[in-house]
Amino acid sequence: MEEQLEYQEGRTEISHMGKVALIERLTADMEMKNATTMMGIGDDCAVMKGDGNRLTLVNTQTLVEGVNFDMMYTPLKHLGYKAVAVAISNIAAMNGTPSQVLVSVAVSNRYSVEALDELYAGLRLCCERYSVDLVGGETGTSRAGMVLTVTAVGEVLAESITYRRGAKLHDLVCCSGDLGSAYAGLLVLEREKVTYQADPNFQPDLAGYDYVLERFLKPEPRIDIVKLLAAQGVVPTAMTDISKGLADSVLHICRASGCGCEVYEEHLPIDYQTSRVCSEMSKNMLPVSCALNGGEDYELLFTINQKDYDKIKNLKEVHIIGHITEEGMPAVMVTPQNTTITLRAQAFQGIDE
Amino acid sequence: MEEQLEYQEGRTEISHMGKVALIERLTADMEMKNATTMMGIGDDCAVMKGDGNRLTLVNTQTLVEGVNFDMMYTPLKHLGYKAVAVAISNIAAMNGTPSQVLVSVAVSNRYSVEALDELYAGLRLCCERYSVDLVGGETGTSRAGMVLTVTAVGEVLAESITYRRGAKLHDLVCCSGDLGSAYAGLLVLEREKVTYQADPNFQPDLAGYDYVLERFLKPEPRIDIVKLLAAQGVVPTAMTDISKGLADSVLHICRASGCGCEVYEEHLPIDYQTSRVCSEMSKNMLPVSCALNGGEDYELLFTINQKDYDKIKNLKEVHIIGHITEEGMPAVMVTPQNTTITLRAQAFQGIDE
Repeated sequence: MEEQLEYQEGRTEISHMGKVALIERLTADMEMKNATTMMGIGDDCAVMKGDGNRLTLVNTQTLVEGVNFDMMYTPLKHLGYKAVAVAISNIAAMNGTPSQVLVSVAVSNRYSVEALDELYAGLRLCCERYSVDLVGGETGTSRAGMVLTVTAVGEVLAESITYRRGAKLHDLVCCSGDLGSAYAGLLVLEREKVTYQADPNFQPDLAGYDYVLERFLKPEPRIDIVKLLAAQGVVPTAMTDISKGLADSVLHICRASGCGCEVYEEHLPIDYQTSRVCSEMSKNMLPVSCALNGGEDYELLFTINQKDYDKIKNLKEVHIIGHITEEGMPAVMVTPQNTTITLRAQAFQGIDE
Repeated sequence: MEEQLEYQEGRTEISHMGKVALIERLTADMEMKNATTMMGIGDDCAVMKGDGNRLTLVNTQTLVEGVNFDMMYTPLKHLGYKAVAVAISNIAAMNGTPSQVLVSVAVSNRYSVEALDELYAGLRLCCERYSVDLVGGETGTSRAGMVLTVTAVGEVLAESITYRRGAKLHDLVCCSGDLGSAYAGLLVLEREKVTYQADPNFQPDLAGYDYVLERFLKPEPRIDIVKLLAAQGVVPTAMTDISKGLADSVLHICRASGCGCEVYEEHLPIDYQTSRVCSEMSKNMLPVSCALNGGEDYELLFTINQKDYDKIKNLKEVHIIGHITEEGMPAVMVTPQNTTITLRAQAFQGIDE
């Protein structure tokens, strides 16, 4: 009788294996047996046959205190809001509309009933905002801190579903909103936390950082972009959300679609407040690094056929940042000096890891 | 800047509030806005409109190491199997058939890739056994131990769905399999653990306890009972699974259906091996207590209209244990001496808490 964790021979550390490789190893050779299963592991959601022409989308996300969020600067109401937003974002990433969420919370006795009230106030606020029904709620006990799991259910018409795998040569690469601002918000919070820990009498002053803080603490899933594209009659050829930085998302689409990609640094949408935070932090902290590798923006990255260019060129919140290149080509960023930088996934350890 | 957990005024400990009351407080006055939502919180699964006459069932369960399972005596392969079995059991509890599961695992660096291989071997084995597709797999990091969340998706015809709320006066109360044996298995494992902790040279001898150990470590969801009832043309009037002991499940049905209940002690199906373990443990440990309050049997508890009696009376794995009484009457167990004991939920802290 002993813990079943030690395999002395050939023990492989999880940290030595990339997340994609790990999931591929664990789920290799799995056959799908049910006629209702349209898509298993490998995209933002699992896809099942739904009512008539509709497909059902399901996604599960677990957030662990101390890993995915820090209670030192995360108000519980914001945490609840964000947990739903992150799950819903994965529905948007398939070009779908969210309809239900199920929540499972495990907490230690550090948390009171009133603390759970705050968490649920945030969960409910985000559900109301996006017309989503909270249909499952389980509470349990954890040994340390909070573990929060949100399962999101949504739907999409069969002719509108957008996988990561559909990008084609010469497609335009687009993203919504701006990139890197959530990470800028995290940088501000971490700076204040360090100062506070050194001097508990320190009063953090977060004035003037409203935009980047809200981007980090209370992101909005881009359901509005899904609706906007539908209104224009545009179905993207491929899509995913930007949860771990632009580089990671571009690589997901290239890998799934079997293509390369060029994005242009000067076309990346970066808010001036993101630049301001970066310049405050260090001269080595570049805004473009926040955009590429910062994560947690929860914007959408998608590709469209060039014939749809006229339909999207004037959409305020949609930015054309590059184009798809041939199979065998790498995913790169082209700088204003016309040098190319190969994209690598190296997001920080945040939500949606 | 400080943790948002302390509400000095009026802090209410979660442990001072029952789980049912807590969930009711957190989810009070929630409106369902989506036409596809058929049932929100308050049963074994959320229910959504599916394809044509089918309804979609979804359920999420989080299992926390040290709370819901003990790595000292839980082989990882068994844990994976059980996590899927528990989730699937909730689909069976609505008279449904499981079709997909999504798994989310967070682990500390104590776990190796090979350990996750074992876990996934168990997850996959249970999926294969019940023809369920594993369609979502996320791995993340935890600060301590393992946190495992399984979301199960299933379906059921609209005319066959069985909620907890449908029990009617004079309905027969039935259960499947036998009760209390999983808890007997836990008692054996805990006894060996205590001995081992006192003397690490102690070699646990689990021979002769195969049945109760398997009941605890590797429960089987009663999909077979769902099929058996369908083959007989029987749709139960109410159903739930028995995850926290018979008493808890009876109370759930009585509460949801607005009725009382009488179950007969002498009709409770208790295996002789459960009785043997109890007698070994202590003369105060009664087998009927394991059945009522032990938990983790994952059998089905259901009620049927008396007109269906002939269809089920000869089914080997179905036991008629009592009948439904009027609204306002309590849920009681009648002893062989014809005294009545009011049922209370007092399950141990296990999976599916």
